[in-house]
Amino acid sequence: MTGAVRPIELIARKREGGELDEEQLRSLVMGMLEGRVSEAQIAALLMAGVINGFTTGEAKALTRILWDSGESLDLTSLSGPTLDKHSTGGVGDGTTLLVAPLVAAAGGQMVKLSGRGLGHTGGTLDKLEAIPGMTVGLEPARMLRIAEQVGCVVAAQTDRLVPADRELYALRDLTATVDSPALIASSVMAKKLASGASTIVLDVKAGDGAFMRDVADAEDLARLCVTVGQDAGRTCAALVTDMDQPLGRRIGNALEVAEAVALLGRPPQGRLADVALELAALALSEANARDTGARAGAQKVRDDLVRRWERGEALERLEQMIAAQGGDAKVCTDTDRVLPAAPVIRDVVATAGGRVRRVPAREIGEIVARLGAGRARKGDDVDPSVGIDLEVEVGDDVEPGQRLARVHARSEDDAERAVDAVQAAVEFGDDGQARAVVLSRVLLG
Amino acid sequence: MTGAVRPIELIARKREGGELDEEQLRSLVMGMLEGRVSEAQIAALLMAGVINGFTTGEAKALTRILWDSGESLDLTSLSGPTLDKHSTGGVGDGTTLLVAPLVAAAGGQMVKLSGRGLGHTGGTLDKLEAIPGMTVGLEPARMLRIAEQVGCVVAAQTDRLVPADRELYALRDLTATVDSPALIASSVMAKKLASGASTIVLDVKAGDGAFMRDVADAEDLARLCVTVGQDAGRTCAALVTDMDQPLGRRIGNALEVAEAVALLGRPPQGRLADVALELAALALSEANARDTGARAGAQKVRDDLVRRWERGEALERLEQMIAAQGGDAKVCTDTDRVLPAAPVIRDVVATAGGRVRRVPAREIGEIVARLGAGRARKGDDVDPSVGIDLEVEVGDDVEPGQRLARVHARSEDDAERAVDAVQAAVEFGDDGQARAVVLSRVLLG
Repeated sequence: MTGAVRPIELIARKREGGELDEEQLRSLVMGMLEGRVSEAQIAALLMAGVINGFTTGEAKALTRILWDSGESLDLTSLSGPTLDKHSTGGVGDGTTLLVAPLVAAAGGQMVKLSGRGLGHTGGTLDKLEAIPGMTVGLEPARMLRIAEQVGCVVAAQTDRLVPADRELYALRDLTATVDSPALIASSVMAKKLASGASTIVLDVKAGDGAFMRDVADAEDLARLCVTVGQDAGRTCAALVTDMDQPLGRRIGNALEVAEAVALLGRPPQGRLADVALELAALALSEANARDTGARAGAQKVRDDLVRRWERGEALERLEQMIAAQGGDAKVCTDTDRVLPAAPVIRDVVATAGGRVRRVPAREIGEIVARLGAGRARKGDDVDPSVGIDLEVEVGDDVEPGQRLARVHARSEDDAERAVDAVQAAVEFGDDGQARAVVLSRVLLG
Repeated sequence: MTGAVRPIELIARKREGGELDEEQLRSLVMGMLEGRVSEAQIAALLMAGVINGFTTGEAKALTRILWDSGESLDLTSLSGPTLDKHSTGGVGDGTTLLVAPLVAAAGGQMVKLSGRGLGHTGGTLDKLEAIPGMTVGLEPARMLRIAEQVGCVVAAQTDRLVPADRELYALRDLTATVDSPALIASSVMAKKLASGASTIVLDVKAGDGAFMRDVADAEDLARLCVTVGQDAGRTCAALVTDMDQPLGRRIGNALEVAEAVALLGRPPQGRLADVALELAALALSEANARDTGARAGAQKVRDDLVRRWERGEALERLEQMIAAQGGDAKVCTDTDRVLPAAPVIRDVVATAGGRVRRVPAREIGEIVARLGAGRARKGDDVDPSVGIDLEVEVGDDVEPGQRLARVHARSEDDAERAVDAVQAAVEFGDDGQARAVVLSRVLLG
């Protein structure tokens, strides 16, 4: 730090609403990793930034710093366009299980590094591990081989990628400094940049079950992520999608795998299929626009994806990917026999009739987590079998006595509590009306 | 923390501008001391409070928490009214050396726990230790004995008082979270409450060389300190005094002792004497008002103090205190022979004439610190002999070639640098006019 501005002066500058440049932010963040700057100093800096705001320039700089802190995957040896997607996390959000095989079927290549669930949101790795034999801890060479052969692979992010992001995130989590668009964007985008794809699409969730409850906030975050990604030379676009109610109908690890398999086995239908198609089409058409110099034919790309879906090509890719990762590929044909089942299954029945006004995503996610599907803290075990099948969504008309959901539980007690909780959570009212699942799209440049 | 709100939720509440209650603040602050809450979490909390503000209720709560964290001095065995004073720190601020013997001469008792200098401000302990033999590390029993016999004693705060304040201050210092009226007030007042006096007067400095540059900010801080002190059942009042220019004419450890002795040896005159008289009169008259139920006669008290000063009673008390603390009491009669002298003394001469517009306190303090009288960091040694004698103050008319100051230095090089710096620091201009030294007084209730 000789000759440089002292950490305390940089923190004070941020406290007063000033802006720090990349070199200054780097000296602080890397200083923490190297023990020259204390966690307390970084916590103070983060809180000042959360309250006063970080600029777009600071978001770009933080992204580069986190990205630079570790290794990157090199996907340049792959033959097709390399595509990646990221979701900010939601309930019943099994989109990756659909998008990855879809883009593979259309000739793209997706090496998707995923995370585990935390709190009320699920994680793709937990879902995949519900499939017997499935391995998500893959060496880069094996990832590339599967991506080349199958077109898609979903693996755990290794510790060698963005180590500064992990340390910074752990600190943010403890110090109530998670809520910052710039910090979220830099954390998301550093991982995506290190994952190596040329084209990145983001699914920024908005609503009750999402990190961003407000659509305008979600759009701001989406715009910031896209800006940061393009600043780093990647093709980048985003959707803002609804997370007021769960995206899929089945919530829980094995249940979401079963839903993905079932969806891919018939013509695309419903909110989850819609988001998956939109994301895959966005990724392919943006990659295409970059290569041809003109943005055109998103609808044509989508139509092509629907045809491939209907011909079973996406399901085939999913089957191949599972097999390549050591999983029992019979999950795609004999789903119920392959996946673990919960011992107790109970119905949630409507006591009165009416129009469904609210199926609160966060609450449903929390009920599923309490059933054992989620983690209260990092490192906890999850139960692949438990969860909830929803049989209604917002806007549906329901008769008294009609089944609203089924609870999959480990015990009668767990089931009873979850049944009561789901019954209390689902709200009725004449003004019940679902909003569009794709709320907006962010395409810059 | 079982059953209580988690630290992260409390931090988030403060981040959103909410208020924490005493139990919540206690769980956080004491949690840090006991290792249950991380320094990073407290740093985030402090930064949120610095930016969003802490309430008066939080300032009161923090004061009690810091005060409760350690022992308190028990002054109830002393026979007279127990009085204490605190200055927020300035340049040439040898007020304690005058106030303590003054109130002792008037029948009060002052057990003053002081600190050391840091940065551009001096510390009373450093000044006293310029006197050969002087001991400031005293056990409570000895402090009480001296206070009873002499009427005043000035000693170092022990580690057993307000340990939470020390830890919190060290953290604030590293994380740019010092600047908060509530944090400053709670730190100051917890120490004063633990020091045990029934009546506390505060000297809150305002101006260039003070922590608070703005008079309105200083008044707010003074009001908050008085409110907190009265909430804890003490008689409490404050002055806001000028720190745009140094308070005394001599700045440096031995120089300030010499100035105090010289001032007490003749009728009170000048800014430093004025502040000392005002503070002593305020303390005595407020203590008196509490005992008699009526606030009256502050001027009478002041007149009485002036008479005692002129009769040499205050100097006599200072001499007795120095002797009681092991110091060479001949400093009061044969000052120059007793105090250490710097080897090099050089004049600063006015190159052009005019009216003095500015004698910047902070800059003069920093020049003196660089001469060796101050500390860059805690634990550094200080040189008792070096410093600056100012011979002009704001509003004085100066002839070309007239001496502005004398520099006392360890070497020719040091002296030369300081002479140039003082010459550059003192500004001239026709609008030069000193503001009143006592800017306002805060008496509540």
